[in-house]
Amino acid sequence: MTDLELPGMLHVTLVRSPYAHARLVRLDTQAATGVPGVRAVVGSGDLTGCDPYFGPAFRDRPILAIDVVRYEGEPVVAVVADDEGAAAEAAALVDVAYEELPAVTTLEEALAPGAPLVHTAEPLAGHFADLSTLRAKPGTNICHQFDFERGRGAAAFADAHLILEDTYTFPRVQHYSMEPHAAVAAWNEAGELTVWASTQNPYSVRVELAKMFDVPLGRIRIVVPLLGGGFGGKTYAKLEPIVGALARMTGRPVRLALSAEEAFRTVRRCDARVRARLGFTREGLLLAAECDADFDVGAYADIGPRIIQKGTYTATGPYRVPHVRLHSNAVYTNTTPGGAFRGFGVPQLAWAIESVLDEAARRLDHDPVELRRQNLLAHGEEFAPGDAPIDGKFEESLNRAAHAIRWTQGAAADRGRGVAMMLKASIGPTVSEAIVRLHADASATVLASAVEMGQGARTVMAQIAAEVLAIPVGRVFVATPDTAVTPYDQTTSSSRSTTMTGRAVQEAAADVRDQLLHVASGRLGVPAARLRLEDGAVVGASERLAYPDVLEERFGMGGGELIGRGVVAPGRSAAPLGGSTPFWEMAVGAAEIVVDEETGAITVEKYVSVADVGRCINPLQCEAQDEGAVLQGLGHTLLEEMLYERGQLLNANLVDYRVPRAEDLPRVLECRFVENADGAGPFGAKGAGEGSLVPVAPAVGNALSRLTGVRLRELPLTPERVWRALRARRAGP
Amino acid sequence: MTDLELPGMLHVTLVRSPYAHARLVRLDTQAATGVPGVRAVVGSGDLTGCDPYFGPAFRDRPILAIDVVRYEGEPVVAVVADDEGAAAEAAALVDVAYEELPAVTTLEEALAPGAPLVHTAEPLAGHFADLSTLRAKPGTNICHQFDFERGRGAAAFADAHLILEDTYTFPRVQHYSMEPHAAVAAWNEAGELTVWASTQNPYSVRVELAKMFDVPLGRIRIVVPLLGGGFGGKTYAKLEPIVGALARMTGRPVRLALSAEEAFRTVRRCDARVRARLGFTREGLLLAAECDADFDVGAYADIGPRIIQKGTYTATGPYRVPHVRLHSNAVYTNTTPGGAFRGFGVPQLAWAIESVLDEAARRLDHDPVELRRQNLLAHGEEFAPGDAPIDGKFEESLNRAAHAIRWTQGAAADRGRGVAMMLKASIGPTVSEAIVRLHADASATVLASAVEMGQGARTVMAQIAAEVLAIPVGRVFVATPDTAVTPYDQTTSSSRSTTMTGRAVQEAAADVRDQLLHVASGRLGVPAARLRLEDGAVVGASERLAYPDVLEERFGMGGGELIGRGVVAPGRSAAPLGGSTPFWEMAVGAAEIVVDEETGAITVEKYVSVADVGRCINPLQCEAQDEGAVLQGLGHTLLEEMLYERGQLLNANLVDYRVPRAEDLPRVLECRFVENADGAGPFGAKGAGEGSLVPVAPAVGNALSRLTGVRLRELPLTPERVWRALRARRAGP
Repeated sequence: MTDLELPGMLHVTLVRSPYAHARLVRLDTQAATGVPGVRAVVGSGDLTGCDPYFGPAFRDRPILAIDVVRYEGEPVVAVVADDEGAAAEAAALVDVAYEELPAVTTLEEALAPGAPLVHTAEPLAGHFADLSTLRAKPGTNICHQFDFERGRGAAAFADAHLILEDTYTFPRVQHYSMEPHAAVAAWNEAGELTVWASTQNPYSVRVELAKMFDVPLGRIRIVVPLLGGGFGGKTYAKLEPIVGALARMTGRPVRLALSAEEAFRTVRRCDARVRARLGFTREGLLLAAECDADFDVGAYADIGPRIIQKGTYTATGPYRVPHVRLHSNAVYTNTTPGGAFRGFGVPQLAWAIESVLDEAARRLDHDPVELRRQNLLAHGEEFAPGDAPIDGKFEESLNRAAHAIRWTQGAAADRGRGVAMMLKASIGPTVSEAIVRLHADASATVLASAVEMGQGARTVMAQIAAEVLAIPVGRVFVATPDTAVTPYDQTTSSSRSTTMTGRAVQEAAADVRDQLLHVASGRLGVPAARLRLEDGAVVGASERLAYPDVLEERFGMGGGELIGRGVVAPGRSAAPLGGSTPFWEMAVGAAEIVVDEETGAITVEKYVSVADVGRCINPLQCEAQDEGAVLQGLGHTLLEEMLYERGQLLNANLVDYRVPRAEDLPRVLECRFVENADGAGPFGAKGAGEGSLVPVAPAVGNALSRLTGVRLRELPLTPERVWRALRARRAGP
Repeated sequence: MTDLELPGMLHVTLVRSPYAHARLVRLDTQAATGVPGVRAVVGSGDLTGCDPYFGPAFRDRPILAIDVVRYEGEPVVAVVADDEGAAAEAAALVDVAYEELPAVTTLEEALAPGAPLVHTAEPLAGHFADLSTLRAKPGTNICHQFDFERGRGAAAFADAHLILEDTYTFPRVQHYSMEPHAAVAAWNEAGELTVWASTQNPYSVRVELAKMFDVPLGRIRIVVPLLGGGFGGKTYAKLEPIVGALARMTGRPVRLALSAEEAFRTVRRCDARVRARLGFTREGLLLAAECDADFDVGAYADIGPRIIQKGTYTATGPYRVPHVRLHSNAVYTNTTPGGAFRGFGVPQLAWAIESVLDEAARRLDHDPVELRRQNLLAHGEEFAPGDAPIDGKFEESLNRAAHAIRWTQGAAADRGRGVAMMLKASIGPTVSEAIVRLHADASATVLASAVEMGQGARTVMAQIAAEVLAIPVGRVFVATPDTAVTPYDQTTSSSRSTTMTGRAVQEAAADVRDQLLHVASGRLGVPAARLRLEDGAVVGASERLAYPDVLEERFGMGGGELIGRGVVAPGRSAAPLGGSTPFWEMAVGAAEIVVDEETGAITVEKYVSVADVGRCINPLQCEAQDEGAVLQGLGHTLLEEMLYERGQLLNANLVDYRVPRAEDLPRVLECRFVENADGAGPFGAKGAGEGSLVPVAPAVGNALSRLTGVRLRELPLTPERVWRALRARRAGP
């Protein structure tokens, strides 16, 4: 993506705010404008012909800061120049005068009574269709609230034998994609805008830009070359609005490619504080659950309001809980905006719930695996009234994980073991569409808009089409996602591509198959029902017609192509968030750790991940996905946290922000899959790739607790935190 | 097209043969290779991994000359360099030693007994599907022959009251597109080749390259930006093979953009010599027709063999002729290859037949309009057994033209009037496919592969989709033809795009319409048959549902798109050339001229063109097309001819090759249309754009004859030729 060049292309450098919160007092661009090669030095006031605000949930994020800056690193001025050198030189000469304002950089500060407000106006609704009710709390930094209750809610705690309550916090972490965000925009003479963008959901970006520039959807073209990682950080508009606006201003193609440091100032995971309360019967059955979660969405809401809904809704995980009360807040702070990140709100809650669950097992004197097992939702059971029935077998996953970690066998004295589970809904309502074209030589092209970002979507789509069409996968070509030509797909996220886009591809290929059978049936004089596809030909009991001959029969010449169409749109439902999940994502993690009592350092010796994926379309890719998920999970579990001091982000670089390295890999890492072909996707597949990240933190935390008796409630479990806790335990009462 | 740039792109300059026919004796590239910036100096022997020959009818044309050069200007060596300057500098240093061979540069020379042979080996079949029988004449320069007979053939002349026979010649002319040929090729790491090409038929080029590089069709991607003119000169592979091969060799994107001078060395119209013989009854009815036509296809056949079939097959034009014998030869000469050019063989034959017809009228003492009228095929009458019935009203066109030129009113003494008619088949069997996508905001995208080359195809496709979908044309966007994504379309030529591609678009849009009606019917509880589309909404007697609401109903969310599919494939038939024409193209021309007796200069004072187009989808565009056709026809009628002397092309440049200028426009130029909505295309349209070129030469020639008594048989009707003929007449016996 970042190496795209267009003739006459200009380059952008952004001047960013050094303050967490400040009023813009004066902007002097004269010196910058004079640098040779500089084409424009643009502040918000210079942008015309477009809505200056964007955002999927709320239109609260300005293309360039308007009057006020709300986080350190917020773009204030864009310098557009012939090359990056000139742009950078000029950017250093832009003189902005600020009047500093009091800032809030933590949930505590933001939620304190009388806290400074990050936004003073009510947010405007964004384009995200299914965020039906916006519930800000005026006069506070809470920009959205979510409430959910079923059964008797909190009242049921009165009947509990055991009630446990605790508060857990989850850190701010960054996606750390190998390729930071990049975008190139160009308007043509017909008033059509093309943006080559590092985005996971080109169709959402298309809506955003169409609204921003007030043009029909068909006039906005988003092309997505291969991405160097996404992890949710490239969902919804990020750089596309500014390059679109600057390309329009300058009449030239405009490119903006961020550094890793700037990615930290673009989006991150929402840190969270979760108070979880669980009530059990004497027998250890879950009776009631309560959660109060605060998610820090940073300076602009991005998709945060949806995250708190979706994440909180499944707070109770894979367990049967008759009585539930859930509440969560999306809270503005003067920090980098929080957005989607692998797990979409679930890791924050699972960290709390799965930890409390282990504490409950200890208090009930139950085995933690046993306690989980007896509370699991059954295959086919409704998660919540109106939502999709559970489409996997939790017990099988749990047993596989327990067996692999040798749960029932004693661990060495210096080793601790812990387990954790997760459940996650995918996005719903949802739509994926695909077109499959069979060419005259029995090669095929798939048009679909699933974005390839290293997860292997292109390969999987090719496999699915090849399987249905009975041709070698090497003869299937997958087009680059491009809203001008590849059909609608809601998003490449939510672990949905194989299941939903894959199903659309499967249906489109089946449409081609039906056409092949129909034409061959006519030619061979054999009913279509007695024909099948095999090795590039329609075959019957004794008949055989190769695809090129079928097409020749259909078209009367050596040309033409069969076009198949696949549309997957489960639609709305009575489910609480407006659409049932099309499938459930589920995983179990089991960790075996050692702790260096001298340093507090945790080493994960062995980690077993078991994900119920229905069926692995591509087993190697599934394994690679889940290895990546576990490793990324180890990041926030042991190492990662974006650190702020007086509103300044301290470690936004590849040296000070420490992600897992090869040496941090568990000595043994096993990623296993439950495959009962019970998923909604092609050949019984369902989503994978996010789930296995979620259990990592609670599995490690539970192992630590079981090994040392120390229960930590704050991530990451850094050596210092562990060491302090161990010392406090030794010094204990 | 020519301004496309890719990162790392290399530029090609071709070293061309200075000889019409020669053996390559030695090639010294050392000095050229040493020029800074030069990446490769490539002769045919350096090309690997590809078939070195290409061509749609025969694979007789080498990417770079092999052993022998066969025309002046043939590419011999390719210099690939960082920029065009270095490539040109190095090209001048390439040292090629030739051994000259005897050459044939005219039909007479090529067909003389014992003539030197342009090719000594039998040609290999090309990919063009429907050139079923290859009939070369070994030991001669005839590479293909066509024969057609119906009724009693030539035997019927025995019963004729009047037999007229004469031989007419048609010159070599060049397409003279404003933008010469250009192509950029790039292979990616997956072994996929993308070529941005100035081609009128990307799907033919795809087949050619897939065969050449032995890869599946899906791995070859041909993208066609807007072209600066085509006129047939950009059909079938031209530069694509060499840039594809060089890009593969160098591992870099490679660009080749020709100069106008080089376009003259790439393709031209086939010159022809046509002996026409017509037999009439006493009443002036056509009884028998015979044609023997030699077409000069130059050094390589290109699509010439198909041209002689197609052109000759309709030699008898719009007239009812019971007995017919036709024969034509495609003849190799040592000149620029002859290929498709607006009219595709018909202008050459019509020049002869329409001239002989006027001579017959004189001899029969019939009015030429009257003579034509009494011989016209009727609407619905079969042109030839098994072929499509006539789908227009010739008489109406003829009457319109005669009326507009005031045929029945006396012309001024110094003015002469002439008429001529034409009939042309389009390509068959044939396939066009399209996809129409209706977006959530009631804008739409059309995916089709009709190439925009100035003729207005994009506008027409948008109009057709807009009409069916009842949305403003400004909300319909037409994708760029790109074989990776836009569906199969046989070719943008043969006047077929509006009719065939347009019909595919119409069907695809109707498919979307049916989906809209179906969904709205369910939502409104009204049968679909009582609903219609109006102004972006489905409406009934009292109901109204805007498209965004229909889509929301269909998809359960504010996203998703309706995908419509249109496939038009009339298939094979019993018609003589394997597929009936899907429509007939027909036009009448009427000219009023003056002649300067001192200089011989003809001035066309008034020209009326009447084309039966069924229906003008875009009247302004139809008019512009036909004005261009008449003007281009005036080129070969009065001015244009590629002149060779001893094998050297003398006037291959924009100064010496004289095309019509604004001052050459008839003082009055009227382009009119017969619109009976009787065409096979959308809303009754049929093909336009080629037809009106055809009658120009015979109409002017007939006018000259009627004004001066001088009958010229050789085009162009230059002042010198006219003056000599006038002088000969005055000096006559």
